[in-house]
Amino acid sequence: MPDSSAVHFTNAFDIRSVGCSGDPTMFEAFWRETGDAAELVIPGWQTMSYFSDVGNVCWFMEPLFDQQVRRLHRTVGNAAVDGYHVLVGTGSTQLFMAALYALSPADADQPTSVVSTAPYYSSYPAVTDFLRSGLFRWAGDANSFVGDSYIELVCSPNNPDGAIRDAVLSSGAGKAVHDLAYYWPQYTPITRRADHDIMLFTVSKSTGHAGTRIGWALVKDREVARRMTKFVELNTIGVSKDSQLRAAKVLGAVSDGYDVGGGGASRHRLFDFGRRKMVERWRMLREAAAASGAFSLPAETSGQCNFANETAANNPAFAWLRCDREDVEDCAGFLRGHKILTRSGNQFGADPRYVRVSMLDRDDAYDIFISRLASLK
Amino acid sequence: MPDSSAVHFTNAFDIRSVGCSGDPTMFEAFWRETGDAAELVIPGWQTMSYFSDVGNVCWFMEPLFDQQVRRLHRTVGNAAVDGYHVLVGTGSTQLFMAALYALSPADADQPTSVVSTAPYYSSYPAVTDFLRSGLFRWAGDANSFVGDSYIELVCSPNNPDGAIRDAVLSSGAGKAVHDLAYYWPQYTPITRRADHDIMLFTVSKSTGHAGTRIGWALVKDREVARRMTKFVELNTIGVSKDSQLRAAKVLGAVSDGYDVGGGGASRHRLFDFGRRKMVERWRMLREAAAASGAFSLPAETSGQCNFANETAANNPAFAWLRCDREDVEDCAGFLRGHKILTRSGNQFGADPRYVRVSMLDRDDAYDIFISRLASLK
Repeated sequence: MPDSSAVHFTNAFDIRSVGCSGDPTMFEAFWRETGDAAELVIPGWQTMSYFSDVGNVCWFMEPLFDQQVRRLHRTVGNAAVDGYHVLVGTGSTQLFMAALYALSPADADQPTSVVSTAPYYSSYPAVTDFLRSGLFRWAGDANSFVGDSYIELVCSPNNPDGAIRDAVLSSGAGKAVHDLAYYWPQYTPITRRADHDIMLFTVSKSTGHAGTRIGWALVKDREVARRMTKFVELNTIGVSKDSQLRAAKVLGAVSDGYDVGGGGASRHRLFDFGRRKMVERWRMLREAAAASGAFSLPAETSGQCNFANETAANNPAFAWLRCDREDVEDCAGFLRGHKILTRSGNQFGADPRYVRVSMLDRDDAYDIFISRLASLK
Repeated sequence: MPDSSAVHFTNAFDIRSVGCSGDPTMFEAFWRETGDAAELVIPGWQTMSYFSDVGNVCWFMEPLFDQQVRRLHRTVGNAAVDGYHVLVGTGSTQLFMAALYALSPADADQPTSVVSTAPYYSSYPAVTDFLRSGLFRWAGDANSFVGDSYIELVCSPNNPDGAIRDAVLSSGAGKAVHDLAYYWPQYTPITRRADHDIMLFTVSKSTGHAGTRIGWALVKDREVARRMTKFVELNTIGVSKDSQLRAAKVLGAVSDGYDVGGGGASRHRLFDFGRRKMVERWRMLREAAAASGAFSLPAETSGQCNFANETAANNPAFAWLRCDREDVEDCAGFLRGHKILTRSGNQFGADPRYVRVSMLDRDDAYDIFISRLASLK
């Protein structure tokens, strides 16, 4: 899931760094190389109606998008799709809100508590509470929650720290929403086919198309799917069809790259490109932290990747960097003073000695970040 | 502004009519004729970033979209743009919610009251209240509102009845939001250049591209523009760039059609096409109502159109039809029994003897509606 405080990012090059936005521009280089494989042409008269598929629970979803989502999950093996409803959203953020709406009982006396284990994605509390809904309310760290009625957000691999997570709460009345935005082979070994009740994904982190604003949900229960669809209907009356068609084209191009029988060209293999990049960037980052001596990073973990059919490291899309200098209590402020923009740990319900750093910026910006970090003592 | 209960529309042809959705498919015929003038090509690597214009209040807005919005308003003369911020939204519905968020004081004890003169657009109460926000709350007909703190929604020409409206409330603490979705030459004479504090528009009703989900707001006050932008950031982290580029292309093609110096082809004049269609459809509808004898319609009004430079009739996008039969209290139910789907007046805060009928369906569906209506006694 992307990052709603992205607007604070400063574009002036002299303080530009890997930034705090999570903008996945690293993938541009890959898509420039694919030529017209992912090019979309839309005639002026196309997709003018509100409707895409009136027989579907998600009546505004383009059937081609549904097909390509299912095809890609079957190719990667990261999530079950048989027996699931696919829903499309304006990014996965909209589907996150849709899930809160769908899972909150309409007749409850109190707003349903929304929790997640710290450090949690900083947008979860902001998005949950900005309209002061009477249906749901942010209630903080799942580990300190007491009660029977809740919605637990499980982000795995986790934003900001890349940890592999399961739900920590369990009760008959509680529900979990699994945010799997980063559960793709460039970031982590695909160790199992996830089959949770509600799973959220987005093109922002899978293919890098953040500006297209397309997310999807895999939902088991039809009534939950219907209520999530109702949310999107009331919120934005559907989802851009142009973006759905573009996402279908892009996801299809990714699957084509691995369609051996169909002659997929190896230079068009997105996850191979992404994995190489992430491995290299994590190597550079660990070396820079070691050269500096002032920072520490989460230990590297690995696992058997069923997609790549080999052991692979976890290469998170964000680095959860700790400043070990005793005179620094505000790591984000310290780094800002050295022209490195990050997001402070306290925005994630954590210690401000930690910061989150995006690993997905363009090469030039990433290289500047690394050289600046390595020079800090 | 489009119609969030559109999903209830039944697509089976045997009961298909002009329907209740307001789906503007009438315009497809025009865009088929324009060839590639409005065709969009998007390479796989384009617009991948969250950001479009970091120096703009609306940081996720494509500069080309901003330019084409201003150009079209200057061409038509329906709204002032100099000194205004342009904001883009996922349809005007999102910007409607953004305006409620921006205009509701964050420190108020009570939710701000949201009102509109009946008959009001049926989505206004639904969209205002579905999340039970503590910031704003639907309070019904503006004419019966008592209080100092409110947001008045002014839809002109009005959905559902096509009336030309001004705000009915006025107080220092109250604010108005002007929904001008239908203030275009195909629907009504352009009698003045509107210059309200907040004005909402959408491609759904101006060009017919409902599926593109692009609306825009013209906003005078910078702080209001900033808060509306914040809403869209938290709600969907920006707006599809693919759709913004498509809307820019489409709006540009409309302006090109009237760019005499640039050799605009007369067959590519959208408002001329729309006006001809609407005049013809209203003629057919009035004849059918007269042939039936069981229905009445609002009286035709007209005015001096500064765009067409001639006197022009008001040709609303919806017909506000009254069933005059004494044995019919539920006009929508009566028509449904005759395979005509409409939306009941009671959804608009009005008498269920009235229904709203879309005038923007494709020719074949509209013709069926007319012949069925004329045959009812």
